[in-house]
Amino acid sequence: MRKIDSVNNQFIKKLAKLQLKKYRDQAKKFLIEGYHMIEEATQSGLLETVLICDEIDVVDGPENIIVTEGVIEKLAQSKTPQKIIGVCRYFPQRLIDGQRFLLLDDIQDPGNLGTLIRSALGFKVDCVIVSPDSVDIYNDKALRATQGAIFKLKVINAELLKTINHLKSIGIRIYSTSPDGGTPLSTLAKEKAYALVLGNESRGVSKRIEESCNRNIYIEINNKLDSLNVAVAGSIIMYYFNS
Amino acid sequence: MRKIDSVNNQFIKKLAKLQLKKYRDQAKKFLIEGYHMIEEATQSGLLETVLICDEIDVVDGPENIIVTEGVIEKLAQSKTPQKIIGVCRYFPQRLIDGQRFLLLDDIQDPGNLGTLIRSALGFKVDCVIVSPDSVDIYNDKALRATQGAIFKLKVINAELLKTINHLKSIGIRIYSTSPDGGTPLSTLAKEKAYALVLGNESRGVSKRIEESCNRNIYIEINNKLDSLNVAVAGSIIMYYFNS
Repeated sequence: MRKIDSVNNQFIKKLAKLQLKKYRDQAKKFLIEGYHMIEEATQSGLLETVLICDEIDVVDGPENIIVTEGVIEKLAQSKTPQKIIGVCRYFPQRLIDGQRFLLLDDIQDPGNLGTLIRSALGFKVDCVIVSPDSVDIYNDKALRATQGAIFKLKVINAELLKTINHLKSIGIRIYSTSPDGGTPLSTLAKEKAYALVLGNESRGVSKRIEESCNRNIYIEINNKLDSLNVAVAGSIIMYYFNS
Repeated sequence: MRKIDSVNNQFIKKLAKLQLKKYRDQAKKFLIEGYHMIEEATQSGLLETVLICDEIDVVDGPENIIVTEGVIEKLAQSKTPQKIIGVCRYFPQRLIDGQRFLLLDDIQDPGNLGTLIRSALGFKVDCVIVSPDSVDIYNDKALRATQGAIFKLKVINAELLKTINHLKSIGIRIYSTSPDGGTPLSTLAKEKAYALVLGNESRGVSKRIEESCNRNIYIEINNKLDSLNVAVAGSIIMYYFNS
């Protein structure tokens, strides 16, 4: 088994660059951390290389490289990393199909993005479509918040207006979410097929996109509160349609 | 109006220490950032001092001090802070009363804690009881995630077993949450009065506490996913009981 001791090794230096989106996009690869993420990634066919400190952690399939804890610390982005790092290829181009769609319009917080992907898998959404101006789906915090769910449903970067037109053409009803007006969630029919659009944490769903949706949903809350967290609001709606 | 130009001013140095729990607990004070948080804090009666860069931002009630942007940057913990910082007193001792209670057993992520407090206000929970081993309720990330909701409902640090016994004695039904077994959420009666216990992100609700609850709830999810994020799961249940 190959061994790398030095954090200054050229291959390790190259991997460390994958912490930045610019280099990820060039190499079309991203890093994952921890036993659970590696386990979820193994069946995706995208896991190329695994860096471990001990042969006990060998993973079947990808290349395994034994490294020092120093190397793990250099590559990991969490504060107290588990001693395993994976290198994955980007997801291939995939078709937007299925019955249930989550459309994310300029979501900026990686925790929100990852949590929404996790909930989307939980409530049987087929595709999560992420607008180009959203936070990167390969961001380490976003990946961590998915808890590996990102390897088990389609997450696709695409223009939302185009996507909405396509979904309408195949008969999918499109729901936007805004606290101002629209239909209260609890009065809606529970649809098997739907597309749900969630907006930016500060400004919500953008006007042009909201106008192209079929209906606006709001969740009834205490008037002492302005709005729910976007990952919470989206998850409640996905739960509702799935229940 | 008082003015402070230097980050080395003794008063500013003392305030900067409030970034650490140890010093917060000594002074029984905490810092908040940004216009929205200050606005939400003003009606609480806990806001003592406001630090601003421009007289246009003067807040009625607390002492206002004009400071430099350097002082704001020293005290703020967000990357691109708005130019306003507040100093608040700790919440006073408060009674656990009302109809709806959220009990948090060793929640570690400040974002989850803050998001749960925000949702609790949204779904008309009266008290959030936080176990002593949970993340600090005055942590800056937790405060930010509440979006100010923390000033509008009771958030109380207390032992959970004692609290559960007290709540049972006044006739409140206690629900724990665990993905293994129990009653599916969608089959439950929508209770006006309840207490909901949520557990640690990794290990869930601790055994002793789970055993003291009346009933376990689970949210039906896709079997491809192990569990939902705790703030999402808690918010869905609070939504359900309030809908």
